Amino acid sequence: MDKIRIGIVGYGNLGRGVQYAASQNKDMEVVAVFTRRDPAAVQTVLPVKVKRYDAMREYVGKIDVMILCGGSATDLPAQSAEVVQLFNTVDSFDTHARIPEYFEALDAAAKKAGHLGAMSIGWDPGLFSLARIYFGSVMPDGGTYTFWGKGVSQGHSDAIRRVKGVKDARQYTVPVESALERVRSGENPVLTTREKHTRECYVVAEEGADLARIEREIKEMPNYFADYDTTVHFISEEELREKHAGIPHGGFVLRSGKSAADNRFLLEFSLKLDSNPEFTSSVLVAYARAVYRLHAEGKTGAVTAFDVAPKYLSPLTEAEQRKELL
Amino acid sequence: MDKIRIGIVGYGNLGRGVQYAASQNKDMEVVAVFTRRDPAAVQTVLPVKVKRYDAMREYVGKIDVMILCGGSATDLPAQSAEVVQLFNTVDSFDTHARIPEYFEALDAAAKKAGHLGAMSIGWDPGLFSLARIYFGSVMPDGGTYTFWGKGVSQGHSDAIRRVKGVKDARQYTVPVESALERVRSGENPVLTTREKHTRECYVVAEEGADLARIEREIKEMPNYFADYDTTVHFISEEELREKHAGIPHGGFVLRSGKSAADNRFLLEFSLKLDSNPEFTSSVLVAYARAVYRLHAEGKTGAVTAFDVAPKYLSPLTEAEQRKELL
Repeated sequence: MDKIRIGIVGYGNLGRGVQYAASQNKDMEVVAVFTRRDPAAVQTVLPVKVKRYDAMREYVGKIDVMILCGGSATDLPAQSAEVVQLFNTVDSFDTHARIPEYFEALDAAAKKAGHLGAMSIGWDPGLFSLARIYFGSVMPDGGTYTFWGKGVSQGHSDAIRRVKGVKDARQYTVPVESALERVRSGENPVLTTREKHTRECYVVAEEGADLARIEREIKEMPNYFADYDTTVHFISEEELREKHAGIPHGGFVLRSGKSAADNRFLLEFSLKLDSNPEFTSSVLVAYARAVYRLHAEGKTGAVTAFDVAPKYLSPLTEAEQRKELL
Repeated sequence: MDKIRIGIVGYGNLGRGVQYAASQNKDMEVVAVFTRRDPAAVQTVLPVKVKRYDAMREYVGKIDVMILCGGSATDLPAQSAEVVQLFNTVDSFDTHARIPEYFEALDAAAKKAGHLGAMSIGWDPGLFSLARIYFGSVMPDGGTYTFWGKGVSQGHSDAIRRVKGVKDARQYTVPVESALERVRSGENPVLTTREKHTRECYVVAEEGADLARIEREIKEMPNYFADYDTTVHFISEEELREKHAGIPHGGFVLRSGKSAADNRFLLEFSLKLDSNPEFTSSVLVAYARAVYRLHAEGKTGAVTAFDVAPKYLSPLTEAEQRKELL
């Protein structure tokens, strides 16, 4: 079997995760990692060539799908429309408000080049988006709820680190169990931001810092914490390293509603992940298979998880899928 | 907006459910119900024309999608390849062992006629199949588990009714909570039939019947009960009518596994339905929308849920889907 040849652009947590995930799929091989750092300084988790970002062009015809592992804030908006001129791509763009413009830019660049780019792939956006569209489509009269956690929010952890006197921090987003139970009971409640999630912060302060001020500044931070019930725990650097080194996450999508004859339905999708980036990577790799197959069928432009039939994700043949999974 | 014109073939629990479900979708209208009974004897839950099965041919060009609401044992194998010669179809064929041959027959007939037939649509096969293919694709190293219930199994209820001295019966399939917990714990256990589900039977006996014999015959029935821990409760006809009139069902699909770096993942999809046929119908109706759209794009032949991209199911435009659901 000819393997699907994967390139990895960017080698942080997500890039490492993609390399691990590709190693679990027999029909894939990672050809090279591309980085804007000094390639000699990049240590990979499994053996693979590491090349400069600018060397990508030499791999045209040698890589089928590039998996873009940069961040959504600045990396992906610049990279995706650029890389898709040379290769098919998959990315995990997750800045929700900018999805429409990102789609337009990627779609135009991909169509012009005759390539295919899958965007906003992962678990949210990604699998959770799938739950929302399937659940809403099969149950028109109802309400959809998304809860995140318990898990580490990198963005919120970073926000705490920017507070004066903070040396390091880890923030957990925690779904409110009683709110989940209200949804499961079929009540279809209107829930405020505060009612859905709490925020738990583990903070290492610099020596002699004013802890009361740090706690106040965190709790009053607009957008990040002000709308939530927030708890701040000051801990030692050692405890942070020992107990909060992982990047777990999880969450729930629920839809509760009813038939025209007033019979109630409840649908729930949940996931629990010891490593958020490693799972996101695993989803990216499955969509790389889909991108490879769809492009082989002549599909070009930008797609999201909504545009990809599930059969394209599975390593099984279509006949095997029907026999074993249907 | 031009509405999608639906026909309903067969008017039992599922046919009624389709009529209810279509009424919840603004882009659909039910044009007619087709029955092999005397149309005058069919009472519909909402106003609609009822026609003889053989009158279907007069509706060519007036109905976009026929939803086949017959049973999998004899109705659907005969009907689907016949009706698809005149119309696009959706059905809920669920005899697992016969899916490959059913697919071939439907695919050939549909392609010849230039129509599209979606088969094995509902929640299992259907949404549960989707969970199995998505979960397996994004987590190659793991195990998938399907549990059903708590819910009424019509087939098992019918089997009990065939026991001598039984007047009526209702059978519930119940997932074993401790087995579910073992899967959720990440243990990846090998579970026997007996370890996954129990069977609870509520039986109305004829007056003077030998209850001990009835209980023994139920519990020893091969395929249906012998491999399960089965409980038999004898109750009055009145209690059966009062407490067991509904057709609830539900279930769980779980996949537990890990990354190449040994981080554990757990994915779970569950549903809880007050009415099994009304929810199945609601899924059939969403796929009727997909069939209508895919056929308009030129797609013919047989498809399952695996072949249909989620975007085709939603009443929203693709731009709205990306903005609101991604």
